[in-house]
Amino acid sequence: MEYPSKLIENAVNQISKLPGIGKKTALRLVLHLIKDKEENTMALADALVTLRSKIKFCTTCHNISDEEVCSICRSPRRDRALLCVVEDAKDVMAIENTAQYNGVYHVLGGVISPMNGIGPTDLNIETLVARLSQGQTEIKEVILALSPTMEGDTTAFYINRRIKDLLLRVSVIARGVPVGGDLEYADEITLGRSIIGRTLFG
Amino acid sequence: MEYPSKLIENAVNQISKLPGIGKKTALRLVLHLIKDKEENTMALADALVTLRSKIKFCTTCHNISDEEVCSICRSPRRDRALLCVVEDAKDVMAIENTAQYNGVYHVLGGVISPMNGIGPTDLNIETLVARLSQGQTEIKEVILALSPTMEGDTTAFYINRRIKDLLLRVSVIARGVPVGGDLEYADEITLGRSIIGRTLFG
Repeated sequence: MEYPSKLIENAVNQISKLPGIGKKTALRLVLHLIKDKEENTMALADALVTLRSKIKFCTTCHNISDEEVCSICRSPRRDRALLCVVEDAKDVMAIENTAQYNGVYHVLGGVISPMNGIGPTDLNIETLVARLSQGQTEIKEVILALSPTMEGDTTAFYINRRIKDLLLRVSVIARGVPVGGDLEYADEITLGRSIIGRTLFG
Repeated sequence: MEYPSKLIENAVNQISKLPGIGKKTALRLVLHLIKDKEENTMALADALVTLRSKIKFCTTCHNISDEEVCSICRSPRRDRALLCVVEDAKDVMAIENTAQYNGVYHVLGGVISPMNGIGPTDLNIETLVARLSQGQTEIKEVILALSPTMEGDTTAFYINRRIKDLLLRVSVIARGVPVGGDLEYADEITLGRSIIGRTLFG
């Protein structure tokens, strides 16, 4: 595609670096910004710069935060005996949205993935071990809430080995048929797991 | 959705103002930017600000341009006897990509749309009439290349009435079955038009 302007070309190239946005979508966005009020583009650019330069990560759980310690770690209403280990900040948001969990979190920042060159030392695992090793730790149970993929399972396996002697209980979130899903469409591994992991009725 | 940070919330709100981007996609983009190198976000924001503050519109044809007069209007290789009227800059790019047109353009900046409160005076129609009225004009034919919609047709009708006495020939782009399209899927109006507008074989 030939662009009528170097400015357009540069903006399209920058926007299309974002995941899931191709050159055509980028061009559509650029032409929208040109037509739109100038202040809207400025507000967008400003939000991005502020975001990237001011964002912090909680020093306790590594979740995204506006302050040194995130609002969940600071809250006096959270149960400090329960700690949920997740891959990234998006998972914290997803679990918070369920309103079914009242403990604290630990964000790994990824999962072990030899294919992508990500080993245990690239993740926030040592700080998790440190949180559990402190003499005054209140944590009784660690819930491993990682994706049910090979990388997620590997990571859960590794973490379990590192922490299992430090506390009472290490659990994993249930695997089974999704609520509202039809049994006949569940794959056999999931269905098998749902039978092995069955719980008492009611 | 509860966001863990005001900065995230603000960035998500700004990004989701873009057409076709919802809150979920915006959040995905924001989390990508946080993980990505800081310089990439800065380059993106910079491209947007530069785009919006430096972009110009050609004083002759109103196409997007880096300079006062766009590269097409400046080019000595373009046929100045042919002028193609289009809705916006995207259409200029689309026609340029076909490599089938060597004339110049006139960008209206929209189409007449009473529903959206856009009348003829909101478009670059007076400047088109002026280009054709100049004593020394070289333009012999105006091609109306507007979308085959009610708004596009209304606009074409209005423009034709304003300019038809000023020049030799006003034409519209052909309407018919799309190349590579299957006849049975063409709607009846398109198919009807393709029969009325038939041309000699070969």
